[in-house]
Formats: sequence, structure tokens, C-alpha cells
Amino acid sequence: MKSDTSTATTITPFINGSRLMDRHRAMAEIGATANGGVNRQALTSEDTRGRQLLLDWAAKRSYAVSIDPIGNLFIRRPGLRPDLSPVMTGSHLDSQPTGGRFDGVFGVLAGFEVLETLDDHGVTTERPMELVVWMNEEGSRFPPPTMGAAVASGAIPLERALATLDRNGVNVGDALAAQIGELPRLETRPLGAKGFAYIEAHIEQGPVLEEANCAIGIVSAIQGLHAYQVEVRGVEAHAGTTPLRHRKDALVAATTLITRIRSEIADPLDVLRFTVGRFEVAPGASSTVPGKVTFIIDLRHPDPRHLVQTGERILQLCSGEVENCSVSAKVLLRSAPVKFDEQVVAAVREATERRKYESRTMISGATHDAKYMAEHTPTAMIFVPCEKGVSHNEAENARDEDLAAGAQILCDAMLAVMSGKQ
Amino acid sequence: MKSDTSTATTITPFINGSRLMDRHRAMAEIGATANGGVNRQALTSEDTRGRQLLLDWAAKRSYAVSIDPIGNLFIRRPGLRPDLSPVMTGSHLDSQPTGGRFDGVFGVLAGFEVLETLDDHGVTTERPMELVVWMNEEGSRFPPPTMGAAVASGAIPLERALATLDRNGVNVGDALAAQIGELPRLETRPLGAKGFAYIEAHIEQGPVLEEANCAIGIVSAIQGLHAYQVEVRGVEAHAGTTPLRHRKDALVAATTLITRIRSEIADPLDVLRFTVGRFEVAPGASSTVPGKVTFIIDLRHPDPRHLVQTGERILQLCSGEVENCSVSAKVLLRSAPVKFDEQVVAAVREATERRKYESRTMISGATHDAKYMAEHTPTAMIFVPCEKGVSHNEAENARDEDLAAGAQILCDAMLAVMSGKQ
Repeated sequence: MKSDTSTATTITPFINGSRLMDRHRAMAEIGATANGGVNRQALTSEDTRGRQLLLDWAAKRSYAVSIDPIGNLFIRRPGLRPDLSPVMTGSHLDSQPTGGRFDGVFGVLAGFEVLETLDDHGVTTERPMELVVWMNEEGSRFPPPTMGAAVASGAIPLERALATLDRNGVNVGDALAAQIGELPRLETRPLGAKGFAYIEAHIEQGPVLEEANCAIGIVSAIQGLHAYQVEVRGVEAHAGTTPLRHRKDALVAATTLITRIRSEIADPLDVLRFTVGRFEVAPGASSTVPGKVTFIIDLRHPDPRHLVQTGERILQLCSGEVENCSVSAKVLLRSAPVKFDEQVVAAVREATERRKYESRTMISGATHDAKYMAEHTPTAMIFVPCEKGVSHNEAENARDEDLAAGAQILCDAMLAVMSGKQ
Repeated sequence: MKSDTSTATTITPFINGSRLMDRHRAMAEIGATANGGVNRQALTSEDTRGRQLLLDWAAKRSYAVSIDPIGNLFIRRPGLRPDLSPVMTGSHLDSQPTGGRFDGVFGVLAGFEVLETLDDHGVTTERPMELVVWMNEEGSRFPPPTMGAAVASGAIPLERALATLDRNGVNVGDALAAQIGELPRLETRPLGAKGFAYIEAHIEQGPVLEEANCAIGIVSAIQGLHAYQVEVRGVEAHAGTTPLRHRKDALVAATTLITRIRSEIADPLDVLRFTVGRFEVAPGASSTVPGKVTFIIDLRHPDPRHLVQTGERILQLCSGEVENCSVSAKVLLRSAPVKFDEQVVAAVREATERRKYESRTMISGATHDAKYMAEHTPTAMIFVPCEKGVSHNEAENARDEDLAAGAQILCDAMLAVMSGKQ
């Protein structure tokens, strides 16, 4: 990012923390679960209602809204010079099936709060300010995660993403068309979301900031993520009549395989993250020996070499025969670790220091939409602590003052980037 | 069973093997899968269509049909003395999700062939002959298996069975009402299906008869079956941010638990059958550490003491903590081994000897509706071989001549029982 010659104001107004909390409460009602979380998976009717609510708020401010072919939603506050690329922020409104009230939502509502704060204080900016609601960040209904951002940056072809099926055989293209049919008429825009800069606010989803008693995490990088889909094929058989020595039991083979992988790649430093979160057994009848198991391995590490080596070892282990069953694996996603832009990271750090918040510079354990923006736009992220580091869980929680601090730093840093002070 | 003073004919007519094959082919088209099997799970529209087809055939013969409150279907060929209890046969038309063309179907169609054969040869009998199509023998949509027969014998309360939910939250009562709405108006009859005798024909679903080159299995008993539902509770967490040492991963705990159980109960004689066929992971998202796993253990053994002891050991292992997760288990089903009636078994054996079929007396590894009939009605079963013993599998297959032999022995044995010759 080159320094900007913008004449934008250097005022850094205070954001409205109670409005930000009201917006969080209103959004948390959409898809609310009995246990205090939300289930607002991508392109469901709950997701549509969440987007509708945000569009209602945007309409009151007369912001221009548009949507791209993969369903990313753009809300723009105009600048004095519409020819200049925007300073951007964003995150997602879709959730895990048993998700929390802040994951993604905070970044969207903090970004919207920045736009409204500038309105309230009569701040004009040279460049437009743009808030993006990325489509399907979670990937729990339609794998993989960060689909909308990945398509916008060209990392996943649009056609492949649109053809992705959910468990009921519905594809992204049809679900998206249904959502668009429910929303007010939106201007369409082509794929590609380059900006002058991009800053995303998010809850940490880990325990570091809370344990260190910090309000702000200055995020300098995102660790790498590989996802592998493993298929174990056995032979279906009758549970009452088939001797164990004759069986090709795909569940037995899959449990042996997972135990073997965990033991072989064990990391004494506990930096490597290995998770099997999706695991499906077919035909799934209690009196039938399973003929097929498919599962997804989610593997993460900040060091690209370590990640690649571990991924290769997993692919070796997931081939050939295990307990008389055949095993194969394919790569779903190979996302290398990403380093953020030094100048934008510095803008976040300086804003944090000016506001005198306790902070910590850190690597993100989770992946985020910002990963794809970083490929073409100077990018950074701001983290705020969440209770006990719990996320992807209905019990997810964050303190009002931390959320307000995060939105404030987002506002300050976006203005600082705009005016080229970093 | 007391000896019958019936005056029924002693003619044992030949069944019509090609008609029996035609009926099998017609039934196999309903719910046919791409791989040559069937998916005709209980109370689905496929199951309804299967029952409809049988009712169409019964209507052509003017047999009386009726249905009981749990959906068991009765097709009756009248006898000279309607006051006498019927000689019964039956099996089921519902299948596994990826089931075969003969499991259950053979017993229903062989029974129907017996009724038609008697018509064709003008045979009158003292007692009525009754064919039962048991509701939900497989239990793959609505656990447990043999639901209809268990309710008819009083082993499961009707209300509990009707309230059983499938994966989509539909209960048996509503699904049954929907099926009855689709079928022609049927006479209703109360629960309870006592008969003078009951003989069920079925494919073996194991390799014994084929290996021994026998056409007929004379089934003297059914091994016992216990089913346990196990729940493993952990804590959902983010796959990218949560160190492994902080996790309570329900999938890791479940795989460890299953490995431990298999090792502890291992049977060097390979008589014990231990199967986990249904295994569900929640929330099932690739980037979320699983918070809950539920699975069903299907456990079988011919020796009641061995079965009970192994079941108790499993319940001990499925309690307390495993890999930081809490584990609990409940009993879904405890069905002791069942010995069949000596006189009815003898009738099957004598019919087999008269027809000069190679045969073998054996214990059934699978459970069957006959298990519940045996509680109140003198009962036996007839097995025919199936290819390589494969069942609960779309590749399930059986030879025309073996199926015809089984139907012939069923016809002969039902008449023999009727006339009190055994």
C-alpha cells in the first residue's frame, strides 16, 4: 500500500458502544438456539433474515448496497472521490450449526458501527468506506470454509463453488438464488473485491488475550490450514451372522486409522491442530456392519514446512489397506500461512497505543476471510478476547467493553490508513 | 402345541416356483437402488408401495386383510372352521437403507405362494392360514428392530413404539397414519397375533448353508441380541485455536472407547458378534471439535450367560470418563436366546426329509420376527442359503431353486402341522 495523499479529517470520533450492543442482541435473535447460541448456517432462511436485518439498517443510512455472483454483500459509505478504491472492512453473518453470537457477527457489526459513527460525527473521507458480508465463512453446510472470500479472490472457481452440495443435495447456486429472491432488489457487481486496505475485526476464538488480560490482539498473520477428505471402504454385512474374521468393517478401520494418525503426528509442543469434526458412517443402521466411512481432517500449523510435511504423512497413512478396508484421501483445501501487511498492522498497533489498550501481537489460529483479501489488498486483523477462549460453541461469549474497544480500534485504524498516517 | 384333530387333506401340492420368482422381481422394483439392492425402509413411501402391491395380489384372491395398531398386516385364507386359531407364516417387506432383494421379502412371498398353491390345487384346510407382514423388522429408520412383532407380543408397549422418532423427528404413529391413508381401507384388529403354529421362511444371511451345500436350514433357535445406546459428551471448540491438551473431543473419546471395548470382550472362538453400525457425531462441522457422539452397540451370542456377562462389562466400560469426556449408556434391547418348538421343528425336518433336500439344523445368527411369535405360539423357521452369506447389502443374492425349495418346505410343513402329523 502506498501512502495516501487523502485530505480526510484526522478526527477519530468515539464509536457508540451501546448501539453496537443493541445490534448484537438483535442479530442474536435470528437463529437463536435454546442454549443461548445461534444456528444461522450459510444460505438458510436464518442467514437470509440476518442479512435482511443488516440491509434494513443500511437502508436507513441510504448506503449503497450490492452483491457479487457468489453472494458476498457490499455496503458502501461514499467518499469525496468515488474514483478511489475503498478502505474496507468486513466479516460474516453465517454461523456454525451450534455457533455463538459473536463469531463473524462482531466484525460485521463493528464495521457497520464505524460507518454510522462517521455519519453521526459528520466525518467525510476522501475514499469510500466499504463493509463486506462474506458468504459462507463457516463452511459447515457447504464445505469448504471462507468460500465467498476464496471465490472473490479467484482461489476457488465460481462454478465449482456454485455446484457444491449440502447434505440434502441442495447446491450453493440454487440456495443463493433463493436467498436473493427473498432479499430486496440488490445491485449486482462483478467478482473481485480489491481495496486500498482491509481490516477485519473478530473475536479471538482462543484463550490468549483473556489469559494475558489484553483488550486488543494485533493480528500479524494467520496459520495455515489443510483439509483432507478421507474415505474408508469396507463391505456391508449382517451384524448377527457375519463372523468378525470375515468382516470388512469400515468403522473399525476408520477408528484404527485415526488413532494411528494421531499417534504418528503427535506434536509435543501442542502447536499442531488436528481435528476430525465431520465423520459419517454408511449405511448407519445398527444391525449392519458399516460399508463406508467418510471423514474430514482439519490440520493447522503456523509453519508452512511443518504443515506440508504433516499433510504428506497423513496422505501416506490414508492410502492402501487398513483392517481389510481400502482407504483413500483427497485434498479439499491447502491454505498456506499468511503474513499480513506491515503498514496496516502498524496502523492497528498505533491506534491501540493511542487509546492505551493493553494489547498483544499474535498469529490467528483460526482462518478468516481476511486471508483471501491479503492476497491482493494490504490487510490486517483486530482481535478481542472471548470468554475462556470458547468458540464454535453456543456458550461463546465476549464482554461489552472489549467489543466496544475492538470497534473503536477498527474505526481509528481505518481512518489512519485512509489518511496515510501509518 | 397339541396334536390337531383336523380332517385337512394330506396332499402336499407343488408350489409354483416361476410365479414365486416373478413376484420377487416385481417387489424388487419398489425402492430399487442403482447397485441392484433395495431401499424400502419402514413406513416410507416405498414401504407403502410394497404393501400396496401385495394387497393388490391378495385382492385378486379375495383373501381377508386386516391391520393391527402397530401396522402389522394380516392376510387370511379361510379354513373350514373359522373358530379355530390359524396356522401362520410371515416375515417383513421393509429393508435396510442399502438392503437386498430377499431379506424378509422371501418369507412374505413364500407365505403368499403357499396360500395361492392351496387355492390352485383346491386344497381346503380345517384351520385358517394366515400370512403376517410385520411392521419395521429392520429398525434402521425407527429403532429397535422387530418392532411390530415385539409390540404384538407385548414386549414393547404400543405407546412407546408409536412415539419413536426417526432422524428427521417424524414419529412412528404419524408415519403409520400416513401409510394407512395411502392404502385401501383395511379392517382393523386388536394387538396380539397368537396362532396354532407359526413357521417363518428366510434367507440365512450367513455362509453356513452355502458352504455345506444344503438347500434347507432347519432353525432350532435364535441367538440372543442386546442393543446399547452410548453417549459420549465432550465440549465443542474451535479446531484452529484450541490446543489439544485443552480439548474434550467426543470423537477421540468414542474411538478410544470402541477400541477398548473390542479388546476387552474379544472372543477367540469368534462366536460373539460385536457391531457398531450407527455412529453419529455432533455438530458434524469440519472446523469444530465434536461435542457429542452417540452410537449403538449391537451384541449377539447364542449362550444367554455369556451374552449377559459381556453386556454388563460393556455397561461398565461405558460409564465415567474417557479422554476427558463423560460417557453413559442405556439398554435399548435385551433379547435372550430363543429355542423353537420341538414339534414344529420336527415338522420342518420331516418335510425336508420327504422332499430329500440336503439340510442342516442350525441356530439363527440374525434375530427375526419369529422370536416374538415363539413366546406364545409353537414356532420354527426355515432358512435357505444366500450367496456368500452376504446380507444387509445391495449385493444380497439367492438361487431360484433354493427359494423354491424353501417355499415348498414351508407349504409342506404348514400342512403337516395343520393335520397334526408331526
